[in-house]
Amino acid sequence: MPYSEQIHQKAVELGKDVIRMTTAAGSGHPSSGLSIIHLVTVLMHDVMRFAPDDPWHPGNDRLVLSEGHAVPAVYAAYADLGGLVGKRRDGAKPLTKADLATLREADSVLDGHPNPAEGFPFFDAATGSLGQGLSVAAGLALAAKLDRIDKQIYCLIGDGESREGQIWEAMDMIAERKLTNVVAIFNCNGQGQADYVSAQQSADSLAAKCKAFGWQVAVIDGHDPQAIKSAVTTGLPRSAPLAIVARTQKGWGCPSLADKSNHGKPVAANKLDAALAELDATAAKLAAASAGRFECAPGKPPSSTRVEARTIAPIKFEAAMEAAGVMDAVRKNAIATRRAYGAALAALGDADQRIVSLDGDVSNSTFADIFAKRHADRFVECKIAEQNMVSAAAGMAAAGYIPFVSSFAKFLSRAYDQIEMAQISRANIKLAGSHAGISLAADGPSQMSLHDVAYFRCATQTDNGQGRPACVVFHPSDAVSAFHCTWLMANHVGMCYLRTHRPDVPLLYAPETHFELGGSHVLIEGNALTIVSSGYMVHVCKQAVETLAAAGTKCTLIDAYSFPLNASPVLAAARKTGGHILCVEDNYLGGLAGALAEAAANSDGDGVRVHAMTVTRIPKSAKSTEDILAKAGLSARDISDRARSIIAG
Amino acid sequence: MPYSEQIHQKAVELGKDVIRMTTAAGSGHPSSGLSIIHLVTVLMHDVMRFAPDDPWHPGNDRLVLSEGHAVPAVYAAYADLGGLVGKRRDGAKPLTKADLATLREADSVLDGHPNPAEGFPFFDAATGSLGQGLSVAAGLALAAKLDRIDKQIYCLIGDGESREGQIWEAMDMIAERKLTNVVAIFNCNGQGQADYVSAQQSADSLAAKCKAFGWQVAVIDGHDPQAIKSAVTTGLPRSAPLAIVARTQKGWGCPSLADKSNHGKPVAANKLDAALAELDATAAKLAAASAGRFECAPGKPPSSTRVEARTIAPIKFEAAMEAAGVMDAVRKNAIATRRAYGAALAALGDADQRIVSLDGDVSNSTFADIFAKRHADRFVECKIAEQNMVSAAAGMAAAGYIPFVSSFAKFLSRAYDQIEMAQISRANIKLAGSHAGISLAADGPSQMSLHDVAYFRCATQTDNGQGRPACVVFHPSDAVSAFHCTWLMANHVGMCYLRTHRPDVPLLYAPETHFELGGSHVLIEGNALTIVSSGYMVHVCKQAVETLAAAGTKCTLIDAYSFPLNASPVLAAARKTGGHILCVEDNYLGGLAGALAEAAANSDGDGVRVHAMTVTRIPKSAKSTEDILAKAGLSARDISDRARSIIAG
Repeated sequence: MPYSEQIHQKAVELGKDVIRMTTAAGSGHPSSGLSIIHLVTVLMHDVMRFAPDDPWHPGNDRLVLSEGHAVPAVYAAYADLGGLVGKRRDGAKPLTKADLATLREADSVLDGHPNPAEGFPFFDAATGSLGQGLSVAAGLALAAKLDRIDKQIYCLIGDGESREGQIWEAMDMIAERKLTNVVAIFNCNGQGQADYVSAQQSADSLAAKCKAFGWQVAVIDGHDPQAIKSAVTTGLPRSAPLAIVARTQKGWGCPSLADKSNHGKPVAANKLDAALAELDATAAKLAAASAGRFECAPGKPPSSTRVEARTIAPIKFEAAMEAAGVMDAVRKNAIATRRAYGAALAALGDADQRIVSLDGDVSNSTFADIFAKRHADRFVECKIAEQNMVSAAAGMAAAGYIPFVSSFAKFLSRAYDQIEMAQISRANIKLAGSHAGISLAADGPSQMSLHDVAYFRCATQTDNGQGRPACVVFHPSDAVSAFHCTWLMANHVGMCYLRTHRPDVPLLYAPETHFELGGSHVLIEGNALTIVSSGYMVHVCKQAVETLAAAGTKCTLIDAYSFPLNASPVLAAARKTGGHILCVEDNYLGGLAGALAEAAANSDGDGVRVHAMTVTRIPKSAKSTEDILAKAGLSARDISDRARSIIAG
Repeated sequence: MPYSEQIHQKAVELGKDVIRMTTAAGSGHPSSGLSIIHLVTVLMHDVMRFAPDDPWHPGNDRLVLSEGHAVPAVYAAYADLGGLVGKRRDGAKPLTKADLATLREADSVLDGHPNPAEGFPFFDAATGSLGQGLSVAAGLALAAKLDRIDKQIYCLIGDGESREGQIWEAMDMIAERKLTNVVAIFNCNGQGQADYVSAQQSADSLAAKCKAFGWQVAVIDGHDPQAIKSAVTTGLPRSAPLAIVARTQKGWGCPSLADKSNHGKPVAANKLDAALAELDATAAKLAAASAGRFECAPGKPPSSTRVEARTIAPIKFEAAMEAAGVMDAVRKNAIATRRAYGAALAALGDADQRIVSLDGDVSNSTFADIFAKRHADRFVECKIAEQNMVSAAAGMAAAGYIPFVSSFAKFLSRAYDQIEMAQISRANIKLAGSHAGISLAADGPSQMSLHDVAYFRCATQTDNGQGRPACVVFHPSDAVSAFHCTWLMANHVGMCYLRTHRPDVPLLYAPETHFELGGSHVLIEGNALTIVSSGYMVHVCKQAVETLAAAGTKCTLIDAYSFPLNASPVLAAARKTGGHILCVEDNYLGGLAGALAEAAANSDGDGVRVHAMTVTRIPKSAKSTEDILAKAGLSARDISDRARSIIAG
């Protein structure tokens, strides 16, 4: 049977599966699935080199479905190929046609949108919040380059979706880094959800944009099998990444689904037979209903190996600082946590080839430049495009790397959606946000991260379904703790967030101090009140505690440097000091004081009272950290005053 | 004196101010300021029509400085013009040259980055987190179009900054909506912070991109006064928006600042004279040091009026529902909160011309389409580009409109950085996030908002410096409360976040029930335990309470629909029912239970215990809301079981 007829026949068969499974689910996007059905069929049943019986094979070509709502098409193709599904290799089973009817069920591996972590390892990352897939593809391509694996990364993008700016951040990165193994396929069916797609996202407009971004471009009929195959296979190896602008029809093959009112609507059960009959009629028209044999099959992936996960042996603080050239600062007892992070990161890079570092044009502020100088091949300058940076890191993590993403904590907030998607992907990425809180002072609120502690904390008390938190947080107060927290991040499997600060601070810990996830340290023991803080504010609290001690009032000072916090020792300390905690933070409410209040207000809290001192007004610039703390009511003096008033009762 | 010499002379004078003020501040970005010094001088001292003595004049041309770190150049120009500064018109004073030395001080109106709310009304929005300014400009242009004011909106964008995808979202919107009064000026100095700007952001590349996005483009020397003036003033009125790609030099006029190592570094005090002398030498070279008179001045703004703020009179629930065609659903007692929101929004649109609605291609899900059908002229379809949507809304708010921004709550998380910047701007925008929480079920976690309650709550307990919260939150449980909360949002001055849900639910409230910011309602009174919830989960709790009541256990049920929550009545209710609260949420921890725990753990809490039932595992798809609640341990049965166990003690 000629190639086109084979593909048309298979596309019709899979299209029927798409319609059946969404009808069975009672929700989903059959018309979107049909618009990519030829693209998916040509890729998965012919062009891609991958092993359906080993979706974890590092040599597999990858498909990133950025427009995640069209996923039933991929499920149908994968079931047809008998691809393995399951949360782990152990016990994985081939997906069957019958399984397709479980789409969106609570125990199905077939989630409503791509979701590898729930048992669909063909995908590398969760998608469905639009515009993120091409960045994931960029990350996979970066990893393949490092691994020297010759594989192609295909990414399917909706035309409406390509309005998302992140797509163009990824286009820039892929062109700049000459990731010529990436193929971006724009699915131009012209229909959005609420309306038609804008002329700004027409096939012609997208083609012009892709060219302006430095890509080579092919505009094709996305339902012409031969055109698709030619576009993706001609002219290899490429001199520039390839964008395919594919004109398609939403609800292809099924005229009753072609109108835009059908977006996201399954066919009603009583109209199912009619819809399937429409696809049969389409097949007949294309002469694709003949009995010839389907002979296409995905190619074999190249043999390739990937470094297995292992624990990184502990590294020495002094050695790391020495190698980074920052021992002078250590000896002078004035070194910012962000700088110790940079030194630790570089040392981790020495210890393990899986460590990679991404930064967004601020590496001389985050001190990721220490890593960059020592491991230029594993440093990815992502320029000023944080969303792409985070999703690309998720892509690299899917390929087995341990990406550390450094930026100002404030600028990471631009990528919270991407961070949430990485949580859903269970991506093993490490976020390092510097210049957090108000201690930044002079640059003002546009550069200060103030919501981040409340934001990230909420995920630390959420299980990822693998017995670990959706995210863990480290908030070190000095160079030693920043160093150890960075090492803990590298060895923790799952997302981590490190919060560092701008100012130089003295050391609080001996180099060999033990740190652990959820841990805290008693820095000073007293009897009058327990003061709890983390990060930069530990130093301000220490001043306050010393002032109080000089006047005869001895307070306990605890550095609670990690979430999910083990609150028990903190509450126990509070019970020994009159049952009150004063919690001091350089961010908005809902962070550390929130965690302690939640623990204290629970039955086990034993009546401990939690008093919060946080940033309670939108800040502005001030020339120095001292000035801004005074303005915010968070100076050492403010803290000691508040402590006295609590103690006085 | 010839035009160019005048401008060069003024640019040198202002450049000196830039250097002096950053040296005085001890931080800042003099070299960036110098790279835009001619662009700023031509605009502010000549081309722009605006009244320095009335920065609030609605007819003023606007300048949005997207690359906010270059702000000293604007401060210098504004001081030279004697522009008014101050938080309000009352007591505003002309900025003087001497004031420039207060840059970045705690009480100065001259923040480290543009910050109108702290007393610099020349700007419309805080900038400094990069890539957001052009969207603000788009919003200002949309407002000017509605107001039929003929004014120009200029936006200065850094070359490195133009890597941010949001810039291209704004480029799309401005081209699509033919906002030909927007002039985007790309400042191409070729230097980033950590490295040179990528070739992807070269002047040539940017020019090609702008063309592909449908703009007319002029590439000029950004230090040539005549070229700047010609580019912005020729060919008016334009048929397409204008992008000016200006080649500039970082540290212009001051060779010792030209190297990229100078990014973000002020001149040391002991090198100040030398730097100023370099600028004098540059002036001499340009023959711009002659004694001729500077004759340029900004033009006068066109006379124009703007609707003054006023309270919108209460509207009737039934009338609003009737007009929206949703009374059938009300009568059937099955209407989603998002639908009632859409109906309320449309009614508000009837009541006040300042109400505008923005949506990102999901208006048929958020029900903003009810507004769109009735007020097409005030509906802005922003397509799938949430960051641009939020910043554009901030721009419209700066012009006096009351923008309601509707999308899935999950997709708004993509714009959290923009939302934070809008908080700093004190932008009067209303965010309405639909399909929040796990009740969405089938679509899976990529479409569910789970972090949002903790995230937004942290800002509700932060003062905006005007005696109001940085943000307030409404989380209605039924159509009546959604309706009233929408009205409250319109009348509250400041950012609001409304959280609605997908499922249809019965009514819980009589139409005339009173709702207020921070309020809560006791829905059922009991004696055994107080159960507190909000949004969709109120209905599930109600089922649980009814089951318990049928078995003789009477619980109090409170709907706590707003943050910052007035916790006192809730704690008081708890004290009457044994001192325990069971708090039930469909999101991650840190929201309602966090607020109650913080209140309870405070001294005033009087020992009330707070037990939280929240989403404790990253969710996945399930076919129905019932299925997913059961999977998450949040079914009515789970709630009644937990209540029994708490009561049993």
